[in-house]
Amino acid sequence: MPAKRDAYKRDTYTPDSLLTVAVRVFNERGYDGTSMEHLSKAAGISKSSIYHHVRGKEELLRRAISRALDGLFGILEEPRAREGRAVDRLEHVTRRTVEVLMTELPYVTLLLRVRGNTDTERWAMERRREFDQRVAELLKQATADGDLRADVDVRLATRLLFGMINSIVEWYRPGRAGRGATTSEEVAEAVVRTAFAGLRVT
Amino acid sequence: MPAKRDAYKRDTYTPDSLLTVAVRVFNERGYDGTSMEHLSKAAGISKSSIYHHVRGKEELLRRAISRALDGLFGILEEPRAREGRAVDRLEHVTRRTVEVLMTELPYVTLLLRVRGNTDTERWAMERRREFDQRVAELLKQATADGDLRADVDVRLATRLLFGMINSIVEWYRPGRAGRGATTSEEVAEAVVRTAFAGLRVT
Repeated sequence: MPAKRDAYKRDTYTPDSLLTVAVRVFNERGYDGTSMEHLSKAAGISKSSIYHHVRGKEELLRRAISRALDGLFGILEEPRAREGRAVDRLEHVTRRTVEVLMTELPYVTLLLRVRGNTDTERWAMERRREFDQRVAELLKQATADGDLRADVDVRLATRLLFGMINSIVEWYRPGRAGRGATTSEEVAEAVVRTAFAGLRVT
Repeated sequence: MPAKRDAYKRDTYTPDSLLTVAVRVFNERGYDGTSMEHLSKAAGISKSSIYHHVRGKEELLRRAISRALDGLFGILEEPRAREGRAVDRLEHVTRRTVEVLMTELPYVTLLLRVRGNTDTERWAMERRREFDQRVAELLKQATADGDLRADVDVRLATRLLFGMINSIVEWYRPGRAGRGATTSEEVAEAVVRTAFAGLRVT
């Protein structure tokens, strides 16, 4: 069908560049609401060209989620997340989680939004809970060390900390120039100050 | 059509009880994804019975959003939000915002999720921004008074504070019994302690 083929550009995608397009569409339409047709249109190549790269949209989801998870779990392997007092390791993990969220924004956004209708989504939610659990254990240890206040429940404190961190995906848009442009280091520092030292001057 | 009418129960709804059903469906399916057919099925009454109460789904949205906004803007009229140092007014507003969010959970959840495809949604987003702006002004004043740290940008601090507060809709489920059951006062206190005094023991 040469007439139809004209609608498509030559497939110069790599698995990575195709993933970039797919994640944008997943975040715009929701994973459930995205068909191979939508991906084909957004990429400007035929569905069969996409199938040349991946088995289907669930594989694209799995790759995207893996990228977010590799970034997040990688933090826990960093020396400053593994050595020293729990409270300092927790602050390091908090700071780096904000940085990874901001540098891998579309991938982490997707991870935070999946809802569990397929095996891949359920696996994503399971791994995300595992990460939250690792951070909760640091909070628990830091509280036991007497470094974190005991009058805020550990479970609740973990939720509020992640609430603050994860909300960044709602407003941060990279490359938005001008007044109020913010680097990931600035935001990470603000989160650490707010969550651990508090906004009030003491 | 008596055969069809059998599928419906007698319409004993009041505008308020119909609203409860509609808001649940809006939050489950998204406002855009909800048809009058969905509302009719969920309520167990015919579409024409629904039209007896309201002009359509946009009126149900407007009523639901108004309920959330009345709760939130009502906070700003409370004496402790109007009198005293800005930092104390801010803490009061933070505490009460958490409480209103938790007691009016489905209505505030809907407010936080609308995306601006209709006039009513755009009005909701506009009013929500107005509320955030009023809180941002309190933060600004408290910083000018020297009561809040000047090394976290006011705009960013406002976003992080609302990030923490609004994330409660992601996990709080009223009436969930047993271990970890949490009252709105406990959560409000935890948010105020975390955001203003910080998690670290000083």
